[in-house]
Amino acid sequence: MIVVLTGGTGGAKLIEGLAAELDPAELTIICNTADDCVFHGLNVSPDIDTIIYTLAGMSDRERGWGIKGDTFVALEQLQRLGNDAWFQLGDRDLATHITRTQWLREGRSLSEITDHLRRRLGVRSTILPMSDESFNTYVLTPQGEMSFQEFFVKEHWKPTVSAVRFEGADQCRAAPGVIDAIRIADAIVVCPSNPITSIGPILSVPDIRAALVTRSDTVVGVSPIIGTTAISGPAHKLMIASGFEASALGVVRCYADFLDTFLVADEDRCLIPELKRLSVNAVASDIRMPDRAARCRVARELLALIRK
Amino acid sequence: MIVVLTGGTGGAKLIEGLAAELDPAELTIICNTADDCVFHGLNVSPDIDTIIYTLAGMSDRERGWGIKGDTFVALEQLQRLGNDAWFQLGDRDLATHITRTQWLREGRSLSEITDHLRRRLGVRSTILPMSDESFNTYVLTPQGEMSFQEFFVKEHWKPTVSAVRFEGADQCRAAPGVIDAIRIADAIVVCPSNPITSIGPILSVPDIRAALVTRSDTVVGVSPIIGTTAISGPAHKLMIASGFEASALGVVRCYADFLDTFLVADEDRCLIPELKRLSVNAVASDIRMPDRAARCRVARELLALIRK
Repeated sequence: MIVVLTGGTGGAKLIEGLAAELDPAELTIICNTADDCVFHGLNVSPDIDTIIYTLAGMSDRERGWGIKGDTFVALEQLQRLGNDAWFQLGDRDLATHITRTQWLREGRSLSEITDHLRRRLGVRSTILPMSDESFNTYVLTPQGEMSFQEFFVKEHWKPTVSAVRFEGADQCRAAPGVIDAIRIADAIVVCPSNPITSIGPILSVPDIRAALVTRSDTVVGVSPIIGTTAISGPAHKLMIASGFEASALGVVRCYADFLDTFLVADEDRCLIPELKRLSVNAVASDIRMPDRAARCRVARELLALIRK
Repeated sequence: MIVVLTGGTGGAKLIEGLAAELDPAELTIICNTADDCVFHGLNVSPDIDTIIYTLAGMSDRERGWGIKGDTFVALEQLQRLGNDAWFQLGDRDLATHITRTQWLREGRSLSEITDHLRRRLGVRSTILPMSDESFNTYVLTPQGEMSFQEFFVKEHWKPTVSAVRFEGADQCRAAPGVIDAIRIADAIVVCPSNPITSIGPILSVPDIRAALVTRSDTVVGVSPIIGTTAISGPAHKLMIASGFEASALGVVRCYADFLDTFLVADEDRCLIPELKRLSVNAVASDIRMPDRAARCRVARELLALIRK
């Protein structure tokens, strides 16, 4: 059994590859939930949904979010009724959020709801929220503090960031199944997701980080950074704001207490000696995953490292 | 200013005519809310929505409910996620329910929400829920007691009905503006809606019925029954279950304490002497309203009776 720690888009690419190269039932995927938001009164869990849709073969690969071929009829009408519509919710996608909101209101946990949704959509991998308790990522900018979705989607990650904060993370416990999965995993994969706002919140749940540290001989990762820039999104910007250098080296420092093996870009081969001095077994490869073939290849390379 | 008491479909036809024959801003429409339901955790007010959509020119006249040309993408996905989908909610229609649910959760009243929705959709008539407090219609059948929507939509009004009950109606007060509108109205129109489950709940709000009785010289109605059958829907069935005969005469008995003038079908001309003995000024006409021309004609005839 392989445990995977992930955010949305970047992580989904590697997970698509892993699910193709392994029996998907062997994957237990722990998702970031600190970007969860309420839009129009509906509870949206962007990273969980991206992973479910990816594994259900429903995701819109071009856009990197939402459901392939979805329509936006309800959203247009919500706008006509005066609602803010900067967060795009498609009509099929809405069914997920309507169901989640209804079940949460009925007192069910995000874990239970996530498991229901993935099963209904035919996903065989286990998908776990990092926690059933909610906490949120806030980003400090010259315009003031904003939620991660405001920064990322509404402001197109343009504002300067001076700090990132996870409100209430230290009070949270891992969702049921998370710690057990980490304990018995054959390997733990840290996806090439944003180390600060995607993997960072997962690590900020105290019992998750503690469990990872006990399994540090089994943790492999893929870099989300090539040179000094994220393959996609604002990871480099948020790393600098959090006091890390924007590089594969900076990513390894984020994971210093539990990372064993790290796959970096060919362009970052020169960093390997320094990574080894940090006691990380580093390997260089082509880590860009623009299409399914590349996703499968990177997954195979990662699985080969795990087996070694 | 004309006050109109209405349910959904039947009432919407007369209201379409009245809004064409008058300045729509002169209409204050009081809607039944005892059929309001929660579907998929969303608050649906079927009668209010039918009236708003009708006056906004958006209603699906063929089907008699929902929005013309609406799509059902979210509903199909809700079904795929295991939700019950016997109540059809279109994608554009969903935007109404999502907005209403969000605003109710934020503590706003149904009156305030209804006013917001009708204004955003360009409706100039005032639309008021009968009450901001919720109570529901229950129908007793051999299968047990069920909500009106279960009986009407899910069971296609097939079960035998032995009783109709409005739970909590006696504790409710009229919504803001309802009693004032009744007090100052030049005329009060009782639509050809179901006397038991559409107009009945409005009359079961104690202060509304009391206010109507004080204005009994101004109340005109149109019969929803021709012979012994409702023009559409189960009115005749529910009238019998409630101890009234299924006829224009039975309808007048439902409204005995406040009805002044009643428009009945040509086929029911023979009932006029008996209606007059009940002190109701009865007039016979063609009261079927299959198209816009008929709706305008019936509205004109009603307005002529009001002016006389």
